[in-house]
Amino acid sequence: MIIVLKKSATDKEIEHITEKIKSLGLAVHLSKGQERTLIGAIGDESLLSGTSLEALPGVDKVMPILKPYKMVSREFKSEPTVIEVGGSSIGSSQVQVIAGPCSVETEKQMLECARLVKAGGASFLRGGAFKPRTSPYAFQGLGEEGLKFLAHAREETGLPVVTELMDPRDTELICEYADIIQIGTRNMQNFRLLTEVGKVRKPVLLKRGLSATIKEFLMSAEYIASQGNTDIILCERGIRTFETSTRNTLDLTAVPVLKQETHLPVFIDPSHAAGRWDYVAPLSKASVAIGADGLIIEVHNDPENALCDGAQSLKPKCFDVLITELKPIAEAIGRGI
Amino acid sequence: MIIVLKKSATDKEIEHITEKIKSLGLAVHLSKGQERTLIGAIGDESLLSGTSLEALPGVDKVMPILKPYKMVSREFKSEPTVIEVGGSSIGSSQVQVIAGPCSVETEKQMLECARLVKAGGASFLRGGAFKPRTSPYAFQGLGEEGLKFLAHAREETGLPVVTELMDPRDTELICEYADIIQIGTRNMQNFRLLTEVGKVRKPVLLKRGLSATIKEFLMSAEYIASQGNTDIILCERGIRTFETSTRNTLDLTAVPVLKQETHLPVFIDPSHAAGRWDYVAPLSKASVAIGADGLIIEVHNDPENALCDGAQSLKPKCFDVLITELKPIAEAIGRGI
Amino acid sequence: MIIVLKKSATDKEIEHITEKIKSLGLAVHLSKGQERTLIGAIGDESLLSGTSLEALPGVDKVMPILKPYKMVSREFKSEPTVIEVGGSSIGSSQVQVIAGPCSVETEKQMLECARLVKAGGASFLRGGAFKPRTSPYAFQGLGEEGLKFLAHAREETGLPVVTELMDPRDTELICEYADIIQIGTRNMQNFRLLTEVGKVRKPVLLKRGLSATIKEFLMSAEYIASQGNTDIILCERGIRTFETSTRNTLDLTAVPVLKQETHLPVFIDPSHAAGRWDYVAPLSKASVAIGADGLIIEVHNDPENALCDGAQSLKPKCFDVLITELKPIAEAIGRGI
Amino acid sequence: MIIVLKKSATDKEIEHITEKIKSLGLAVHLSKGQERTLIGAIGDESLLSGTSLEALPGVDKVMPILKPYKMVSREFKSEPTVIEVGGSSIGSSQVQVIAGPCSVETEKQMLECARLVKAGGASFLRGGAFKPRTSPYAFQGLGEEGLKFLAHAREETGLPVVTELMDPRDTELICEYADIIQIGTRNMQNFRLLTEVGKVRKPVLLKRGLSATIKEFLMSAEYIASQGNTDIILCERGIRTFETSTRNTLDLTAVPVLKQETHLPVFIDPSHAAGRWDYVAPLSKASVAIGADGLIIEVHNDPENALCDGAQSLKPKCFDVLITELKPIAEAIGRGI
Repeated sequence: MIIVLKKSATDKEIEHITEKIKSLGLAVHLSKGQERTLIGAIGDESLLSGTSLEALPGVDKVMPILKPYKMVSREFKSEPTVIEVGGSSIGSSQVQVIAGPCSVETEKQMLECARLVKAGGASFLRGGAFKPRTSPYAFQGLGEEGLKFLAHAREETGLPVVTELMDPRDTELICEYADIIQIGTRNMQNFRLLTEVGKVRKPVLLKRGLSATIKEFLMSAEYIASQGNTDIILCERGIRTFETSTRNTLDLTAVPVLKQETHLPVFIDPSHAAGRWDYVAPLSKASVAIGADGLIIEVHNDPENALCDGAQSLKPKCFDVLITELKPIAEAIGRGI
Repeated sequence: MIIVLKKSATDKEIEHITEKIKSLGLAVHLSKGQERTLIGAIGDESLLSGTSLEALPGVDKVMPILKPYKMVSREFKSEPTVIEVGGSSIGSSQVQVIAGPCSVETEKQMLECARLVKAGGASFLRGGAFKPRTSPYAFQGLGEEGLKFLAHAREETGLPVVTELMDPRDTELICEYADIIQIGTRNMQNFRLLTEVGKVRKPVLLKRGLSATIKEFLMSAEYIASQGNTDIILCERGIRTFETSTRNTLDLTAVPVLKQETHLPVFIDPSHAAGRWDYVAPLSKASVAIGADGLIIEVHNDPENALCDGAQSLKPKCFDVLITELKPIAEAIGRGI
Repeated sequence: MIIVLKKSATDKEIEHITEKIKSLGLAVHLSKGQERTLIGAIGDESLLSGTSLEALPGVDKVMPILKPYKMVSREFKSEPTVIEVGGSSIGSSQVQVIAGPCSVETEKQMLECARLVKAGGASFLRGGAFKPRTSPYAFQGLGEEGLKFLAHAREETGLPVVTELMDPRDTELICEYADIIQIGTRNMQNFRLLTEVGKVRKPVLLKRGLSATIKEFLMSAEYIASQGNTDIILCERGIRTFETSTRNTLDLTAVPVLKQETHLPVFIDPSHAAGRWDYVAPLSKASVAIGADGLIIEVHNDPENALCDGAQSLKPKCFDVLITELKPIAEAIGRGI
Repeated sequence: MIIVLKKSATDKEIEHITEKIKSLGLAVHLSKGQERTLIGAIGDESLLSGTSLEALPGVDKVMPILKPYKMVSREFKSEPTVIEVGGSSIGSSQVQVIAGPCSVETEKQMLECARLVKAGGASFLRGGAFKPRTSPYAFQGLGEEGLKFLAHAREETGLPVVTELMDPRDTELICEYADIIQIGTRNMQNFRLLTEVGKVRKPVLLKRGLSATIKEFLMSAEYIASQGNTDIILCERGIRTFETSTRNTLDLTAVPVLKQETHLPVFIDPSHAAGRWDYVAPLSKASVAIGADGLIIEVHNDPENALCDGAQSLKPKCFDVLITELKPIAEAIGRGI
């Protein structure tokens, strides 16, 4: 950690800062420049987390050098994490596709969607039983009944199931039914929920928060990992910007950035990013080309009657075409799909 | 709701859309322009929430006309909501000040802070016992012990207590100790938590999410109100933008915008917005001048040893000076503080 | 245009608004709903540009229906624009690559870069002679001397030259040397400069502004087109967001959005978006996969001694590898490179 | 400047980086930590501007320590800059108000507006003769004729005139008529225009770019100052964020931040920030309370027929009331208006 001092910092202030850092168990490295004096705090920066160096008189700014995440970092573990779920390897050379409706609506709909996406080439089934909706008056999901429909669809098709957990009190229930637990974008910094899924033995699909930096995203993954669960799939799903022509702005650059910073697999959700079904295909192609380990795509058998997100759901036929078109792109970069 | 059709929309598509809207119980108003055909869906727009009009063939875009929030809107209730807590009126002509440390650290610290902020002019005491921290390795709060210290400080000073709820499982516990329940910025769209505090009989201080629009902010308030609890205090605390010279960008314009849209009281948190104590005073002055109903300010008796947010905490002396300086500004706009 | 009235709008106000619209030559369509009255202004919306309907008493908001751009829109011209420059077709099935250093530094450097990028597979040479630099103390470009070096490199290699125009007073000079005139991101709304290049007979590469919406981007293209020059290449180069791990956030979704809205070719500049050379390859792959018509890539023979943007410049060897890797991706979507 | 090395940096790479820095005339300070090696480059950081340290092998990131602006910084000149124009002191304890219509429309309108804003308490008259409009089909201003109307209004009222310069070719013309030259938000990084107004002997009102950081804003001021003209007024006018309930998000915190960083006076433009006249009064009050040195407010005698920005223009009566309401706030902070 580098502490940049104010031009006006006095010797007494410098001494006070120096003593403070030493008292916390770090070494100090003083560097007096012509214009500014810098203090380097050498050692474990986390020892400084319980103090507020910026509040010390004479301090202009504090610049951390080390990364705040550990277990999820590439420096901690250099080889990529591969997660095995129901016979499929996530994070391997095979690009995995999770598909299905935004929310579970009826048993018939789930079964039909499951069969169609399986036929189209998906390896996992998505569907929300608990739905985080902006409006209290909108459909909130079927709850446990929805989970049962998902389980039934899994039985019929063999597709492992991905579904969202919104409330720490539902953890056990979700674990009973889900193969992969999804933490939604609005809960990326619901630290209690992260701690909870850190304690279970199921892979977690963690969606990036709407306005989370890559660093914060990785810190949320670290919350889960620090509890013992390192089977984490990161999912970029669009960030909030000033642009309004799409629902969110898909930050595809997050893929190479995350690949450099972490060993965890990285997925893309083009459906929520775009908010419109007709942009899902081009975004999926770009996602595969840039090196994403998987896609999570909304597919509905009857989008115009979907209770949620119909506008961004692919019809099964479009999904089939898309998977066919993705194959040569995956091959072009030496992967399969 | 206005449905703008594509230029290429066929008569059959128009008929299909029209039938769909009618089947949901709304009237239809067709308007064929030279360039575009528009369909007006007249009636209760919420009847359309379970359908995806954008997914219908021929539809270009859907433009809602009515506001999605009801109970919290000015149209629903024109006079301002005034909330009485411990003898102080929130939302009245008196500007209220909540002050105290970011987190409860020790009994001694809480007592000292409470006495100092009371002497300085605060009417409410803040302090976090459960802390949402970006890092799993940072201090997470004292939990129930912290709540007890808060309660003790209240006994000694008479100041009502504001503290944060992070987990639906802690609702009862927090209600036992808190006079006002705070929902933090990262939980503004934790819909389960909102539903939970909607059911209790305590005022809620709802902080705006880091990247929440005013509309989303009010929809989160609507979640609480729809459960029966309408004692909601809205709190702007800075939004996330590209600017890095401050921790967040305080959106002060939110005050007049919210005052127009809702009857609920509006507070400002200058400490979290700025992230630096030396900007807290000017931001507080602007907040009072623009018409905020209250301020929530971090004050610590020993900022440099604060376990959290020391850099943005005022020393008690600065707090005293600030309150003194705010008085004439409040008077200038016909209010007290 | 839809004018949404306030709930409180009086009959007299409605009449006043109606008269106003009619006096401007549009027809009026009144629709009284239970909650709101709407007024549709039917006809050429641009007739309303000289008036301020929002300022009329009784008006709540004004919602435009038609797109503000005309000549550059897909509705105006459905087939894609193909621009022929020096034997290469921009906007065709062939993905075009513009490559070269950020700025022209010496004759030797330009010649070397030109030869190397040609060998690597570029069809166009880039290089700035006039450089918009954030600091007045940074290298501002060689001016006309730089243009001469560019011309010389063109002679030697046959590569057409792309270079930036910053000042309307240099238009003639730039036209003398450039094959394609670049308008930089900071000048996207320099309307005088747009008007100027609208009058010349050279293709224009228009970069999207750092915080320009797609709509504003197209309006800037419309400025150029409205003067008679429709040979416009749009270039997405990253937008400004809260994320700091890359220089900008590349908005790749802009490609399918623009392809739907306009007939103009769309390029991507991965170098400025990323700000780091090691992200240029993955971003380029995604750009080709998503359907961009071309790439503009910074390549420098000696990045560490580059006078500008060395960190984001590819070494010629990396460029060669990249082009080789892009070929199968282009083929996978039915294009060449 | 601190250069953080990669964990994998070799001794040879470290030596190469060290040599590079020394060759540019700076001293080197090496600090080997347990986890990372840092290199401090001590001396004039601007000597490094012509090189790309990030491009050197072994470098992870480069962190500048010193501020890139000099002449405009508080460290360079600690006392505030006061600019005298037509008998009024800008940057003094007197808060100055510039008022008038968005654009000059007719001689009669300008005269009437000028008289009304003078009566209301304005000290300066604004009005655009050259208008940067998003659409090429919108009113572009009257040009020189408009400047003449402004001059006439000045003669009649004695109010000095503020008007915008958009094109370096108009510099002389504008200087003939204007007392203060405005550089608009879209031209904040039109570096040629900045250089041009840096050479004239007229004060410049420099508006912050829509997505410019404070640092970039000050660098643009530095462009002007570096040419010799230090009579610069900085004007915050709203930045672009995700929020859509106002035209832009007014960053009022910019006032205390700028006051700390620079000696230049700071103005606020509440009209463009809000985009709606009814938010102008509360924003103006906050601006005065937070310490702005002045306001620039759009006032039109007939907003609904304004050719530009009618929705955000105050009627003269509202302007009168506003100035009356601002007086006690200015007094409350020890200033006049």
